[in-house]
Amino acid sequence: MTDNAMQKNLNTAVLLIHCPDQKGIVAALTRFIHENNGNIVYLDQHVDHTDKAFFLRIAWDLDNFLIPDIKIADYFETLLAVKYNMTWQLHFSRHVPRMAIMVSRLSHCLYDLLSRWQDGEWKVDIPLIISNHQELHHIATQFSIPFFNIPVSGNDKESAEQKQMKLLKEHNVDFIVLARYMQVLSENFINEYPFRIINIHHSFLPAFPGARPYQSAYERGVKIIGATSHYVTRELDAGPIIEQDVTRITHKDSVADIIRKGQDLEKIVLSRAVYAHIEHKLLVYKNKTIVFS
Amino acid sequence: MTDNAMQKNLNTAVLLIHCPDQKGIVAALTRFIHENNGNIVYLDQHVDHTDKAFFLRIAWDLDNFLIPDIKIADYFETLLAVKYNMTWQLHFSRHVPRMAIMVSRLSHCLYDLLSRWQDGEWKVDIPLIISNHQELHHIATQFSIPFFNIPVSGNDKESAEQKQMKLLKEHNVDFIVLARYMQVLSENFINEYPFRIINIHHSFLPAFPGARPYQSAYERGVKIIGATSHYVTRELDAGPIIEQDVTRITHKDSVADIIRKGQDLEKIVLSRAVYAHIEHKLLVYKNKTIVFS
Amino acid sequence: MTDNAMQKNLNTAVLLIHCPDQKGIVAALTRFIHENNGNIVYLDQHVDHTDKAFFLRIAWDLDNFLIPDIKIADYFETLLAVKYNMTWQLHFSRHVPRMAIMVSRLSHCLYDLLSRWQDGEWKVDIPLIISNHQELHHIATQFSIPFFNIPVSGNDKESAEQKQMKLLKEHNVDFIVLARYMQVLSENFINEYPFRIINIHHSFLPAFPGARPYQSAYERGVKIIGATSHYVTRELDAGPIIEQDVTRITHKDSVADIIRKGQDLEKIVLSRAVYAHIEHKLLVYKNKTIVFS
Amino acid sequence: MTDNAMQKNLNTAVLLIHCPDQKGIVAALTRFIHENNGNIVYLDQHVDHTDKAFFLRIAWDLDNFLIPDIKIADYFETLLAVKYNMTWQLHFSRHVPRMAIMVSRLSHCLYDLLSRWQDGEWKVDIPLIISNHQELHHIATQFSIPFFNIPVSGNDKESAEQKQMKLLKEHNVDFIVLARYMQVLSENFINEYPFRIINIHHSFLPAFPGARPYQSAYERGVKIIGATSHYVTRELDAGPIIEQDVTRITHKDSVADIIRKGQDLEKIVLSRAVYAHIEHKLLVYKNKTIVFS
Repeated sequence: MTDNAMQKNLNTAVLLIHCPDQKGIVAALTRFIHENNGNIVYLDQHVDHTDKAFFLRIAWDLDNFLIPDIKIADYFETLLAVKYNMTWQLHFSRHVPRMAIMVSRLSHCLYDLLSRWQDGEWKVDIPLIISNHQELHHIATQFSIPFFNIPVSGNDKESAEQKQMKLLKEHNVDFIVLARYMQVLSENFINEYPFRIINIHHSFLPAFPGARPYQSAYERGVKIIGATSHYVTRELDAGPIIEQDVTRITHKDSVADIIRKGQDLEKIVLSRAVYAHIEHKLLVYKNKTIVFS
Repeated sequence: MTDNAMQKNLNTAVLLIHCPDQKGIVAALTRFIHENNGNIVYLDQHVDHTDKAFFLRIAWDLDNFLIPDIKIADYFETLLAVKYNMTWQLHFSRHVPRMAIMVSRLSHCLYDLLSRWQDGEWKVDIPLIISNHQELHHIATQFSIPFFNIPVSGNDKESAEQKQMKLLKEHNVDFIVLARYMQVLSENFINEYPFRIINIHHSFLPAFPGARPYQSAYERGVKIIGATSHYVTRELDAGPIIEQDVTRITHKDSVADIIRKGQDLEKIVLSRAVYAHIEHKLLVYKNKTIVFS
Repeated sequence: MTDNAMQKNLNTAVLLIHCPDQKGIVAALTRFIHENNGNIVYLDQHVDHTDKAFFLRIAWDLDNFLIPDIKIADYFETLLAVKYNMTWQLHFSRHVPRMAIMVSRLSHCLYDLLSRWQDGEWKVDIPLIISNHQELHHIATQFSIPFFNIPVSGNDKESAEQKQMKLLKEHNVDFIVLARYMQVLSENFINEYPFRIINIHHSFLPAFPGARPYQSAYERGVKIIGATSHYVTRELDAGPIIEQDVTRITHKDSVADIIRKGQDLEKIVLSRAVYAHIEHKLLVYKNKTIVFS
Repeated sequence: MTDNAMQKNLNTAVLLIHCPDQKGIVAALTRFIHENNGNIVYLDQHVDHTDKAFFLRIAWDLDNFLIPDIKIADYFETLLAVKYNMTWQLHFSRHVPRMAIMVSRLSHCLYDLLSRWQDGEWKVDIPLIISNHQELHHIATQFSIPFFNIPVSGNDKESAEQKQMKLLKEHNVDFIVLARYMQVLSENFINEYPFRIINIHHSFLPAFPGARPYQSAYERGVKIIGATSHYVTRELDAGPIIEQDVTRITHKDSVADIIRKGQDLEKIVLSRAVYAHIEHKLLVYKNKTIVFS
């Protein structure tokens, strides 16, 4: 049975940690889990030798674990995190993350997200879809997901965001996927969901940030195009990159061809990033991601 | 405006030709079209120097073309095809191809096909979905496409195929997509749709033909997996390859991981092949495909 | 026998053409060659529908061609180029191009170029290697190619370039390959060899132009790195892209790992670009390349 | 400074281990090293949950390590390996591995190996090159490496192998690279160098094993070709795969084009595999490789 399968079926805890590198961290951690009867089902670590920083993802079976779930965070903080100066997150496999989707008019990423959800490929709930347009309403209906149309115009952007944030709170959203949502979010909005807003940009960043990257790629005459999924931060298209992929084009490809080929990349790259987020495989450090296997 | 865009908006004819290579074919063809007031919007040719064989795809605007559509085939046959010993197909952009989908229990390719159709990305009609199981009925319903469940068991395979072929005929199907349909079609069935049945095989053919290729890939320890879309011919998994793509795996990937990564390949590779078929970009020669740009 | 093989063995002419698109160009061209007893061994064309521009590469066997080699250009200009407003180049397969290599201290691209040349993979002569350093002298010696060390310092750059250009002229150089040559060439130098200086840049342009792209890629946290070969124009790293390729990296890759992986890309991408140039497969139009097959 | 850089400059030990998975292995190992004043500079582990097998690569600085180098193996065996039922290898960074190269007539892989060695990219010695032909003798001479021509004919294969093995022993060879060596080695020969003979096969194994894979790829009409580097075992082309890579081809590619594109893959894939072997990043388990980062 695989780690993923285990996490789906078993009752596991996942710890994501980073801290200054020093001797004995793995030993201390694994001892903590073993001594309390936890069976480790995943462990991967990384050391950044330049920064002398240590990163770890560890998952263990909670079934016979001696510390009650509700006290794990407290014990871990007291017994280990303070000592090693750890920044950490604790996740439980039985909590199904709640993912909001924001879209505009393009449907390809939305279909891809919804079909994976409906198929049961991902362990995620999708309580709502928010859009500044009406075009994709019918898809939400088709998949029986509440759809909220909140138009965004230049001068009422703030009030639109207030409505969006209210909805997201009411639906207890854990993270947000911008599935080709064509509006820039305010710093205020972003701060509410730090490293919990995932965007797909239709270029191989940092090439062609901003609007119309396919047109720019065509004009520059590149031989390869790409798509980039990243966490949204205040600086546009400059957040930590989660996943990228590319495909070849030639001089025969028109802008329409490039868009068509690029959209296939976009939906796959975005879905890979969302999967990694759902499975708690991502750690952000210095505006970069550690992506555990 | 691109060739594709043109074909969608304009009233064009597409000719796919192969014949023994000799001097003057392109000149004769382009003269035939120009002299009859056709505006060529696409021309791509290929010469197989080993076999001395010539291949061409040419498309032209019919709006001011002097030969009536209904007579083009006749004139072309008489004036050019006989002379150059051509094998050819003539397609009109105003005919929207009718595509049947056959599925079993896996949904990822089906979702991908249906979302492209519903989105208007492809100029195709989908009159029906046929399945040997009931699991995906709800998806057909969601997309408002008639779904026919025809169970296939070992000893009534022939009668099941009779029912399938009856349905396909009643719905005037032009071609069939096997979207992870898990039954082998009989020679009789295949002969009804020569080079008009498109399959997706979940390996990088000719590696791992037959059943359970992901398990085999895992056991062999390959570092790259693939998916292959091909026309179905009598020999299992040995028909002309239309499109392939691959992705890297490592020793960390379980069979479940390989399946997950492979399914993303499958749906994209299948959809690229279907697109090329719909756009009449494919020619079969000696069990290989010429794929025009 | 393949087109390439033919070009190596046969006595062929290659025409590269671009002109405004209009009816009958291919017909006129092929008629011109056929009527003069030329056997066409390659023809590939491209139409840019946005710009209504036409591009063509055509090669034919000269053995029985009625027009003497020395007069082909004249006849072609008079009979066809003027009429269709063509920009064109004529190349003869029996002329072996003369390629200069300019290097600094890194050897990987130089080894790759020299080994292909020595192996006879390319139909090219290498009359000299120029370097602003001495480090790679021994490699030139090893491959028995004259090596000229011309130091370039901030204030004598012009005189250094004068020496370089004098050498290039004396050696009748057709084109120049910058195999990780770490100096920016002056406009004056570049103008002497328009679209005949091929550079390799160690990033996926337009991402990370300028110096230290691997360091920048590491800092930005990209998941894929690339290399780009392009013709050198006045604007740094902004000339027409000939070829690009990429490879995946992860958070585990240090800058040293990225450099190691990138150097494998660099040498292959550069060599592919050089091959395309040698075989006259490249046309520049609006700062982009048409790369014929 | 990177791990690789460290291993080059520092005096390190590398342990490669596999054993049945159980609690506390990492803790025990890291404690063993820390308690003896070793500074861990690399640790990566993998658990095969299907087989309940544990794999680990760990490297540490020997400078202040309390156990003398010569006794590390003994202490490790006694204190840890027996207890955990470990299969293991111990390597010291100060030992420069001795690599023999065997070639036939094709030069591209040989050039690539020799240029990396001469450039100092790899920490390896190349005491000799053995060939069944004379064609590449001049390259060995160019790089000042002893070249031994041992012709192999059908009926004296055994005596040829005896001569080869004698030479390999005399030169204290650690491992052998078959750089397009076109002879099948006997079981007897292979047994002398278990998992220490690296071959490059010019296909995407398991597709097209045996001779003439490019011709077969052309005939089958695949859209992607590949190259595979693997350890040589008794079954031809069936040993543990170390590295693979692929490139796209189209119907336009002749067999000669496929060979040309494939040879670029071959040399890069082989060199990546050799690098991984030199750096002790490879573990073989059940005819598959674990490739540590």
